[in-house]
Amino acid sequence: MVLQTITPVLLCGGAGTRLWPLSRKSYPKQFALETGGRTLFQASAGRLSGGNEAIAFTAPLTVTGSDFRFIVTEQLAAAGIDPGPILIEPAPRNTAPAILAAALHLHDQDPEAIALVAPSDHAIPDEAAFQAAVARGLPALREGRLVTFGITPDRPETGYGYLELAAPAGEDPVALRRFVEKPDAARAAAMLAEGNYLWNAGIFLFRVADLLAAARAFVPDMLARVREALDEGRSDLGFLRLGESAWNGLEDLSIDYAVMEKADNLSVVPFSDGWSDLGGWDAVWREGDPDAAGVVTSDHATAIDCENSLLRSESGAVELVGIGLKNVIAVAMQDAVLVADASRAQDVKKAVAALKAKGARQAETLPRDYRPWGWYESLVIGSRFQVKRIHVHPGAALSLQSHHHRSEHWIVVEGTARVTVDDTVTLVTENQSVYIPLGAVHRMENPGKLPMVLIEVQTGSYFGEDDIIRYEDVYARGQGAKG
Amino acid sequence: MVLQTITPVLLCGGAGTRLWPLSRKSYPKQFALETGGRTLFQASAGRLSGGNEAIAFTAPLTVTGSDFRFIVTEQLAAAGIDPGPILIEPAPRNTAPAILAAALHLHDQDPEAIALVAPSDHAIPDEAAFQAAVARGLPALREGRLVTFGITPDRPETGYGYLELAAPAGEDPVALRRFVEKPDAARAAAMLAEGNYLWNAGIFLFRVADLLAAARAFVPDMLARVREALDEGRSDLGFLRLGESAWNGLEDLSIDYAVMEKADNLSVVPFSDGWSDLGGWDAVWREGDPDAAGVVTSDHATAIDCENSLLRSESGAVELVGIGLKNVIAVAMQDAVLVADASRAQDVKKAVAALKAKGARQAETLPRDYRPWGWYESLVIGSRFQVKRIHVHPGAALSLQSHHHRSEHWIVVEGTARVTVDDTVTLVTENQSVYIPLGAVHRMENPGKLPMVLIEVQTGSYFGEDDIIRYEDVYARGQGAKG
Repeated sequence: MVLQTITPVLLCGGAGTRLWPLSRKSYPKQFALETGGRTLFQASAGRLSGGNEAIAFTAPLTVTGSDFRFIVTEQLAAAGIDPGPILIEPAPRNTAPAILAAALHLHDQDPEAIALVAPSDHAIPDEAAFQAAVARGLPALREGRLVTFGITPDRPETGYGYLELAAPAGEDPVALRRFVEKPDAARAAAMLAEGNYLWNAGIFLFRVADLLAAARAFVPDMLARVREALDEGRSDLGFLRLGESAWNGLEDLSIDYAVMEKADNLSVVPFSDGWSDLGGWDAVWREGDPDAAGVVTSDHATAIDCENSLLRSESGAVELVGIGLKNVIAVAMQDAVLVADASRAQDVKKAVAALKAKGARQAETLPRDYRPWGWYESLVIGSRFQVKRIHVHPGAALSLQSHHHRSEHWIVVEGTARVTVDDTVTLVTENQSVYIPLGAVHRMENPGKLPMVLIEVQTGSYFGEDDIIRYEDVYARGQGAKG
Repeated sequence: MVLQTITPVLLCGGAGTRLWPLSRKSYPKQFALETGGRTLFQASAGRLSGGNEAIAFTAPLTVTGSDFRFIVTEQLAAAGIDPGPILIEPAPRNTAPAILAAALHLHDQDPEAIALVAPSDHAIPDEAAFQAAVARGLPALREGRLVTFGITPDRPETGYGYLELAAPAGEDPVALRRFVEKPDAARAAAMLAEGNYLWNAGIFLFRVADLLAAARAFVPDMLARVREALDEGRSDLGFLRLGESAWNGLEDLSIDYAVMEKADNLSVVPFSDGWSDLGGWDAVWREGDPDAAGVVTSDHATAIDCENSLLRSESGAVELVGIGLKNVIAVAMQDAVLVADASRAQDVKKAVAALKAKGARQAETLPRDYRPWGWYESLVIGSRFQVKRIHVHPGAALSLQSHHHRSEHWIVVEGTARVTVDDTVTLVTENQSVYIPLGAVHRMENPGKLPMVLIEVQTGSYFGEDDIIRYEDVYARGQGAKG
């Protein structure tokens, strides 16, 4: 058997609200939800690394948004996975432009490249079974077909689209007859009984040349414009940022709608070893292996006399206790708590909308704010002071800046900082401090090989992120940009 | 009409668990639950200050536990109430010893003294109506009677004891026939219908000489021992700490059981203008003025399609959202969250027991730790650092101390500190910092008239409160005591 090389294409630009408060616009589900010590994104990348006797995965190609690019690199590094190329979408445009950009980029490197495109926010616990399924798709590729993966349904689900097969599902690829929209309950029950309908999981395996040929036939304008965005793209700190003017003119379109539903050369590989899109807290409950009473609890969550309930504490600093609950979902974080009837899991977006309407930060952002150079969080804000923890990646640097309204004390508590204050540059290491007077031009850098953590105590009258006069920034950000 | 002077006796040594997570052993309900910007303790003290055309309250006499003494002074100061004498019970011994100690202390000052004894964790929204009821009790005192206050029941409550009156309740004091234990549901309904049963609220008005005469008759040994504890008491930073050896030998007994149920000279003043013992979250819900759907929400709590539910965020930093809930109580804090079916409000103690069993700090303590000199809270703990906010009262001082395992950086962010480091004493003011090397003997004091707040950044290998070598302490605490 010839070992087939496959490049994983990880799509992680999405930002849903259905897993609020864990998932927020600034830090969506694929990066936030952890199972077994890995985030969904890390698990997706891990599932598409290594290989078996038939396939070998290369480093992944990741397509994400600008706000998430450093989360991607940090999470891949933490999982010990070679990052591969990272394409930055100037704006979200659904899956078709993202997948076409990935396909064009891979085709430029190798016209024979094979890609496995997958969302990065689904759960597939059995990695080996999934890799075996990928291998089963290879014969169809040799016939120039586009392969998708269909999940064997175990319930009459009305929340997913379906794939109708030309023949009942077995182990081997089956020709696709057509895509089926989300059904009503009766139709879902009928399809479950019939046996030749699988859930559409949005996972695709193809020779990039074949996908591009299909795109050339069905969406030639989109393909041309994506080509343009790629050609106009520029390398930025190791990321490939797609050209903004071409990209922003693209239509928001799914790959199903743009290409797959029109193509007549689709094959489906059935997969029945466990999959969930984790599309809501009810799905997280289902995947959480409920006990005999139907209860799922996380660390730091305690259920007393509860039934059919999910109790999750998303912070080691928060203890959550449920008493006598039935069909309740409770998710606790340090700055936000959701408590919902389980039947209302799909209405969590209403919580986000309500908080947004009242101007609560928790609607969209976490206490921890990710920046190109690392992250910071505000530990306490008083009337005339603020304390922050600042985490700077090895080799990273904050901008050269000054403030009109505050002085700062920096105490390094981990690693070593190179600190510029006006004309003086000093190395400041663990347990040393430095004072930045109001108005002084200053910068902090991490020249070392380990993360640098410092505590910043600001005193003054105003602590807004817009009181930053920026003189020089390796990340090319403007006035008022954060950090 | 002669203006009668009355001394309020505030009992606030209790530490229940039924309002966890808000109420904890280290910071119980009377100090924690706020309504209208005042804690229950502050509201109780406020209700028993000032007076009307018939009565004038003196400064209160407070009886509390050692752990709560500085909470008492801080909350009275914040409410603008003269603290009066504060008696410290070396250990909780229920209401009889506490009330007898107060009565003896008042009698020593003035044998004609009149006391109004009240728990400090009940809600009585209409202060003027309550003061009018107190005034209605005065005629009975002139006949040497002990007066208690009975709440007109509005439901067949099985959670309270009752007072059976010799005649139906009107406005004026009525002779008490007998105390009635907590009834079953049928008996409670019958008593509600009969009209001469009132709830026992544990509030008493008496000439201290009369109470002491009754105690001499019914519990002479207890009275003698309380006298001894008072005589052995010592003044400690303005508190009167009762003698430990005498006090600790006292029986744990309620004033009802020790004296009131045996006395034949009790009169009851009916009160029907609103009262709650706030004995559980269900009572807090009931007193919270539910809307048409039966929903009560606090600031930073949002209810979407909820019914008959209580949603409270106890922190401005936590947003709580409920969706589709029925009969649910949810209380969110930064470090702990309770979600319970409303019918299980009395089982909250099970939550505390479960957390205690698993060793979770949240069972009994809050993030903020109260000390004689003020309070501190840990803002973040890393593997080799910890950051604290420390709040020092005007005129207060921490002990002179040193550490084996950590250095400290202090940055003053509010007020002015006097800082001792080995042989050097300096004034450190807002936006100034000082470094305490490992091993240095140091002390912080607040010499000013305003609170002093500083941020302490500790670096080292161990941050336990037992790494404190204490050289000198105005609060006479030993090695390993906190702060």
